[in-house]
Amino acid sequence: MIEQNAHATGDLPVTFLRDIETTIGLSHLKQGDAIANLDYGVTPANFGADAVAFPSSTQEIACIIRSAAAHGVPVVPQGGRTGLVGGGVSSPGQIVVSTTRLNRIVEIYPDERVAVVEAGVTLQALQAAASEYQLEPGIDLPSRGSATIGGMVSTNAGGISAFRYGVMRHRVLGLEAVLPDGSIYSDLTRVVKNVAGYDLKHLFIGAEGTLGIVTRAAIKLEPVPAATATALFGLPSVEAALEATKLGLSVEYGHMRAAEAIWNSFFSLTSGEHLWSATDYYPDYPVNLIMALGGGDEEQLQTQLGRIYEELYETYPEMSAVVATSQTQEAELWRLREDTDLIYRRYPAAPSFDVSVPLSRIEAYVTRCIPELQSIDPTFDPYLFGHIADGNLHIVLNAAGADLTPEKAAAVEAVLYRDLTQSGGSFSAEHGIGSKRVHALRATADPVKFALMTRIKAAIDAGHTLNPGKVTG
Amino acid sequence: MIEQNAHATGDLPVTFLRDIETTIGLSHLKQGDAIANLDYGVTPANFGADAVAFPSSTQEIACIIRSAAAHGVPVVPQGGRTGLVGGGVSSPGQIVVSTTRLNRIVEIYPDERVAVVEAGVTLQALQAAASEYQLEPGIDLPSRGSATIGGMVSTNAGGISAFRYGVMRHRVLGLEAVLPDGSIYSDLTRVVKNVAGYDLKHLFIGAEGTLGIVTRAAIKLEPVPAATATALFGLPSVEAALEATKLGLSVEYGHMRAAEAIWNSFFSLTSGEHLWSATDYYPDYPVNLIMALGGGDEEQLQTQLGRIYEELYETYPEMSAVVATSQTQEAELWRLREDTDLIYRRYPAAPSFDVSVPLSRIEAYVTRCIPELQSIDPTFDPYLFGHIADGNLHIVLNAAGADLTPEKAAAVEAVLYRDLTQSGGSFSAEHGIGSKRVHALRATADPVKFALMTRIKAAIDAGHTLNPGKVTG
Repeated sequence: MIEQNAHATGDLPVTFLRDIETTIGLSHLKQGDAIANLDYGVTPANFGADAVAFPSSTQEIACIIRSAAAHGVPVVPQGGRTGLVGGGVSSPGQIVVSTTRLNRIVEIYPDERVAVVEAGVTLQALQAAASEYQLEPGIDLPSRGSATIGGMVSTNAGGISAFRYGVMRHRVLGLEAVLPDGSIYSDLTRVVKNVAGYDLKHLFIGAEGTLGIVTRAAIKLEPVPAATATALFGLPSVEAALEATKLGLSVEYGHMRAAEAIWNSFFSLTSGEHLWSATDYYPDYPVNLIMALGGGDEEQLQTQLGRIYEELYETYPEMSAVVATSQTQEAELWRLREDTDLIYRRYPAAPSFDVSVPLSRIEAYVTRCIPELQSIDPTFDPYLFGHIADGNLHIVLNAAGADLTPEKAAAVEAVLYRDLTQSGGSFSAEHGIGSKRVHALRATADPVKFALMTRIKAAIDAGHTLNPGKVTG
Repeated sequence: MIEQNAHATGDLPVTFLRDIETTIGLSHLKQGDAIANLDYGVTPANFGADAVAFPSSTQEIACIIRSAAAHGVPVVPQGGRTGLVGGGVSSPGQIVVSTTRLNRIVEIYPDERVAVVEAGVTLQALQAAASEYQLEPGIDLPSRGSATIGGMVSTNAGGISAFRYGVMRHRVLGLEAVLPDGSIYSDLTRVVKNVAGYDLKHLFIGAEGTLGIVTRAAIKLEPVPAATATALFGLPSVEAALEATKLGLSVEYGHMRAAEAIWNSFFSLTSGEHLWSATDYYPDYPVNLIMALGGGDEEQLQTQLGRIYEELYETYPEMSAVVATSQTQEAELWRLREDTDLIYRRYPAAPSFDVSVPLSRIEAYVTRCIPELQSIDPTFDPYLFGHIADGNLHIVLNAAGADLTPEKAAAVEAVLYRDLTQSGGSFSAEHGIGSKRVHALRATADPVKFALMTRIKAAIDAGHTLNPGKVTG
């Protein structure tokens, strides 16, 4: 924390606040009670800072950062405040810089299949704008209405299409960012092939705002298929789900758009709460798989789903399947996967984990972890679901956050994270490190990699102006 | 250059050479005449160094780097020596470290569609190994027989599939590299989703060996289609070629595997030399386009190519098309695009350029550049071809390198590189910077980006041990 100033409002120097007011206008700088009226997003800790600034341009952000660096005021950048690991939490003595007003879709180049947008544009806004040209961003996630492109770039967001189109890092062609000294890194190329020097945009992608504030991005778009078809498969094992995924990846007509696995405990919760059932669909399969295909013609896509079913059925005759025959039915199937709020309503702040496991190890991983978790607490029956085509599993404990002692929490992490890095996986697949996972990163990272991370942070942000306490700690 | 040692062999200290001999064995350290017998690759300047070391493991490379750092001996890493911009050239006082003996395919995980390989494995060797599981690396280029995975990672190779599967950066899931202090960066994850801290492998990808020596990589694989179909379209304009590409990207059955444009001057050269012609195919189209589709059934793919032809024909009735009906015919079509040797035999060391142009600007770029080049020298009629789906154009002057004065060369660069960065393109699409393009990078890069590049280089390789004079200079 910086030294107290006699004329400080909260913990921030008055001269600094005057600077910010001059830069962005008084009405765009919120302090005290005015902050309390804002939507803090996932956690009230996001608004622990004394002030929240709403600049409207890259230049205004650069001015704020220069002034913050000069006054030694730490800056916490925020997008849609949907992050789950405390990447946007702030404290007294800090200022939040929100990208909410950087909400312009700068240009869509339909013939290039590229969009250039400001950081505060939500995923949903980009999806809507792109859809006018039958294009889509190639990335999708449930928080699309709030999550911003800048936040998704900064956290290297994943979602349901990553097995096909890559994660956010693979969608970004060009980037503009404000560095910790207030200079503007400008690299808004719109081409996939660019080897003109080190590709430093990848430092800012996934750095959670600790190395620079992303202000604009050029995003690769993909054609929207004319039709989709969606099925739910009830399957006896992870092996069967992986086999289904493999068949989905090699359909002759169209392409696979999603392969989402829902293990029994979470499926029981969502299907029970939403009173979902279907004739001949046994409600208690070990693994349920939502598979979506995209292509030119719905009927042909449904034929493909039928073929996948037939091929699977030969090996797994105990399986069953439902094919959605309307958009309503499609939405109902997706709700079985996406309505994670049901968990948190039952178990407030339930501890959630987000791991990547190489596909060939998923079955062994789950088989090892469940009994080990139950040996910590016999009531544990975690909710398990995820993006099976890329090995990304979400594990949410059936326990309120407040009920978990630090010892139990550490024991749970030890079970879930053991050997993950060594076996080619990752203890953080798409949620990031933020402030919550710093200790786990230190505990599991290759020491050479972690040392290099801190060296890079020091080289770019020696003054620790940007998002202190996050990622490297 | 380091201080001369009284007992030096060439410019290298004897104690250093002893270290290397002890590490890798005398027979794997080549000096003097023994170097002259090796294949230097694209240019004899690759072997300007006093010694060439052939280590066989990551650990041996780490030992060499530690000793080189201690003795102040610069190290030039080399893979297949196919680079076109002098990224592997070396000088007296330096040692070359070749990855040739790191040629093991460590493991292929067919169910994960991932291969872990050592850096010296050639692309062709990986393609062969993956094909046993009906998989392919998702990247392909003409120098596949010599280019190594380590070199392709270090140069962020592009090639013909980048519009679909991304460049090498998008194929790398995990990486191992030796850092300039001899420590080993180990991050061999095999999952696409991984946000466990800064993703520093992207610093080494495309850094041309200036930040670390890549020793292993986990590479994403893709299913090989059961069938392919290939056509050549003769088209009146770039606009028509882009329209064809767009149709290819949205085929209902199968998928587009390649879209390669060959402008008239290069097409005349290759079709003339190889005596290629086809009934009803006019030899003098402004743009010729090779389009390949992949999928389950050849006949259906050819139907798709037929539909693309019919749709294009409505707008461009002057066009014509040839569909390959055998693998021999397919290979003959590809030779029209890939036999660039014909140029260099006619014009030794002909100056070649490799730019990325946003798709919507290709037509304007070509239309501007050709007359401007001819105003420098009226005999200029450059060979033009490239990967049109991602805007990557190769431009080779019809002039021997030796015939071009430095003034003319500078004027040519000024024409070809003008406004490229500002308009969202890149003056170096897939060939890199090496030693040849350092001045052009300095002249065209965003100054903030270039300054950050040098700061990163200093933070990681303060002693300038690795590949000095390349990329940042």
